[in-house]
Formats: sequence, structure tokens, C-alpha cells
Amino acid sequence: MSDIITSNNNPTVRRLRKLATSGKTRREEGRTIASGTHLAHSFLDTGDTPEICIIATAAQANEEVIELVRQLQHTSTTLIEFADNIYESVADVHAAVGISIVFSIPEASNTALIGDALLVEDVQDPGNLGTMLRTAAASGITDVYLSPDCASAWSPKALRAGMGAQFALRIYEQSNLQKLIKSSQTPVYATMLTGDSVDLYDLDLRQPTAWLVGNEGQGVSTVLATLTTERVHIPQAATPVESLNVAAATAVCLYEQFRQRQSSQ
Amino acid sequence: MSDIITSNNNPTVRRLRKLATSGKTRREEGRTIASGTHLAHSFLDTGDTPEICIIATAAQANEEVIELVRQLQHTSTTLIEFADNIYESVADVHAAVGISIVFSIPEASNTALIGDALLVEDVQDPGNLGTMLRTAAASGITDVYLSPDCASAWSPKALRAGMGAQFALRIYEQSNLQKLIKSSQTPVYATMLTGDSVDLYDLDLRQPTAWLVGNEGQGVSTVLATLTTERVHIPQAATPVESLNVAAATAVCLYEQFRQRQSSQ
Repeated sequence: MSDIITSNNNPTVRRLRKLATSGKTRREEGRTIASGTHLAHSFLDTGDTPEICIIATAAQANEEVIELVRQLQHTSTTLIEFADNIYESVADVHAAVGISIVFSIPEASNTALIGDALLVEDVQDPGNLGTMLRTAAASGITDVYLSPDCASAWSPKALRAGMGAQFALRIYEQSNLQKLIKSSQTPVYATMLTGDSVDLYDLDLRQPTAWLVGNEGQGVSTVLATLTTERVHIPQAATPVESLNVAAATAVCLYEQFRQRQSSQ
Repeated sequence: MSDIITSNNNPTVRRLRKLATSGKTRREEGRTIASGTHLAHSFLDTGDTPEICIIATAAQANEEVIELVRQLQHTSTTLIEFADNIYESVADVHAAVGISIVFSIPEASNTALIGDALLVEDVQDPGNLGTMLRTAAASGITDVYLSPDCASAWSPKALRAGMGAQFALRIYEQSNLQKLIKSSQTPVYATMLTGDSVDLYDLDLRQPTAWLVGNEGQGVSTVLATLTTERVHIPQAATPVESLNVAAATAVCLYEQFRQRQSSQ
């Protein structure tokens, strides 16, 4: 490993700090940074190699870190040690162990909707988005399409909430959802905030299905909703609650689909 | 309405800022502050009266605010106008319209588990907790018990995520979950992170049920899990995802219960 970086003005530190804090920089460079041993493991499990691996001085003795460094030593990954205060100024401090990887954001070329998919319109909160990706991966969805105004799936916050789900999915950012829905070969269901639509539990979800979920405040836009096969709502008890959180609603829909398929086997 | 408060050092401003930022102050005073027209409406729908209602100067002309002020004018509520910069330094800036209410946190006296309930052990994120409360209310749960180390249901962040669900539930903070589970008259199911437990979809959930969900990282503690009727997991597709987000998992379980009861009617 190279010398310990201790200066805030080191060009690598400056560059990585920009990558950690600026969505624009991540998009322009096509790279992102993920922190913690769990995300590092999940990334390596895909067979890819990170460009850079940064380790905080305090984490050098951590057994998981030692094992990860051993895995990376004979690859093209640049291993760098950061003094703890420098590391904390760059990386996601929520990760318990001071290790971060920098890697190219996987590019998925935009295809037609032919199988199970999740379409996300303008969800703003990276925590919500990460949670939805995690649920999608757990319930067997492999393709996720994000609208241009959606939060990025590759920000440090979304990566943290996704807990590695990003590496198990094909994620199509900047997708033209209108075009995708129009040309879809599978039914597309829009999840609606109001009850003026089909009850989720009246649907037969055993065939390939695409789910469209919308913004936290506005829900799915009318423009997209009218293009879908069916508008669907999650029924509620008598208590007047406006709607579910978008990530909770996504979990309910994707798992109802999972349940139907499991029980029809 | 009284004069416009424009000073950062005004004692009311100082007191409300403390209420907005300190969980300790909220607990000691038994009061909290909620922002935005939606939460104000949800609170008033319960029939209770806030102690104080603060309105930002910029919101004075808002129609919904005018209507809310009209409702409060002949009650015991103290109406106060804050200059915009003062308002923003006190209230939750995520609410689109500058109105906040201060009210006593409803006290629910701790009873035995006899009907449907949600038990929450040490969930740390107020956004997760608020989302869970919202799902609980939507799916017909009325009683929620929080462990002493759980995030508070009444912080500005939890209130925002709950979208008024707090006002539709009986929430028992600082609950002794161990005692509750031991003396429960209904089955208690612990949601587990791993597969070494009963499959959610193999359960008959048509009878009153209490659900126990745990901390974001650790899940339900072994101490509590061993006391429950059954340990339950949400099945997953082949993709290796560690577990669902706790609020997503809660949504899947509570809605499977809702579905079974709806379809058995």
C-alpha cells in the first residue's frame, strides 16, 4: 500500500470528496463511491474490480478489511490508506468500518419491457429508492427503470439504503418511461394513491408484470398512469390514512406478486 | 393574532426551537411540534386542540392556513405569527406551508396485549418508524408499543414520515416488551432476518396477532425472539439480498395479514 494520505488538499482526497458529495460529478465521471465492508463484499461478489479501495488507518487491523485487501492485492485496484480524519471527510460515516471502494457505475443499455420490472417515476428520497431496490432484488425483480428526475441509485445514501441490491439488479437510469410503457409487451400496473382504481388483491400477478410507482408527494403522473394497463391501489382499513410511503407500497405490491407465484408452484 | 415575532432571542422562539430539536425536552415537557397543513389537519381531526399555532408571515395568505386559523380562533390555542426567517429556524422546513402546531403528546397507559398490535424494538431511524406507523394505521392496527431505546414517534422527523398516522394510533412509548410478550393473550410473531424460521405465507393470520419487529442492523433481539409464539421470515427470490428494510418488512407482514382477513370475509 502507498503512503498514508494525511492532507486535506491531496488531489485524490479532493477528487473523491467531490465524487461523494456531487451527483453531477458522479454522472459526469460515471463513477461512484460505496462505504463499509458489506457494500465492498457485495460489489466483489459480482466479479468486478473496484478502481480504488480506500482504507482508514483505524480500519487497517479489522479482520474483514484485511481479508478484502488480500482479495484486491493482485488486481488492478489502487489501494490507498487515509488518515482517519481525512477518511471521515470523504466517506459515508454511517458505515461502521472505514473502507470505501470507487468503481464505475454499471451501464445497462435501455431495452424494451419484456419481463418483470419496476419503473420508478421521480422518487426524490435516496433512502426510499435504496429501500425499493432492496425489496425489488429480494422479491426477484431484475430490471429497474428510473425516470430522469428520479434520485440516483448510485449516491452514497441510496447505496447505503440498498445494502448491495444495486449490484444484483440491472438499473436503467434516465429512462424514458413513457416510451417504455407504450411499447411494453407485458402488462404495466400503476400504483395509485387513491382508491379509484383496481384493488391490488383482485389482480392475477402470475404472469410477467411491470410496476410503475411515483413521486413521494404526487404519486404517478397522470400522463404515465393513463398509458398503463391498469391503475391499482392498496386497500386500507377504515382508519383514514392518506397513503402508504412509496417504499412500503412497493414492498406490498412486489410481495403480493411473489406470494401468488410461490403459491401457484 | 399577537404582534409578529421577529427576534431570535424571543423566549417563545427559544423554547420552541428546543422543542423542535431536543428529544429530551419533548419527553420532559410531554409536548411536541408538528409542521405543515397536512399534520395540522390530521391533528384537528382528532378533536384535540393545540396549545400553540405558529404561522410564518409568508403563509398568512395561504387559503388552507386561513381556514385553519378560523377553526382555532375561538379555542384555547395561542396563535402566533413568526417572521419567515424566525419560522424557518424553528420549524420543519420540509413542510411546504409555514404553519406549525404545538401540542401535548397523547399519553396511552400501557395495557396487556389483547388484540392486533405492532411491537417495535430499538428501531433507530425516525423515518423508518414514521413509515411503519403509517403502514400500521393503513392496515388497521391500532396499538403500537415502542421499546425504551426506540426512536420517538413524536419527533418532527417521525411525524413527517408518519403523515398523521400518529394521530390515528394508540402509541405506547417506553414499553417493557419482554413483560408484554410474556403476558400476551394473542400470538406474537417475531420477524427475523434469516430463513431459519417459519415462512410468512405459511401462517394463518386471521386471528388477532401481535408483530414484533427489530432494530435496522441487529433485527429482533434473541431475548425477545425466544419469548414469542413463532419466529417468522419473509421468503426471498434466489438473488442473495441480506434482508428487507425494517419498514418494508413490516409492510409485507401487516399487509399479508390484511389480505388474509379481507379474503376470508
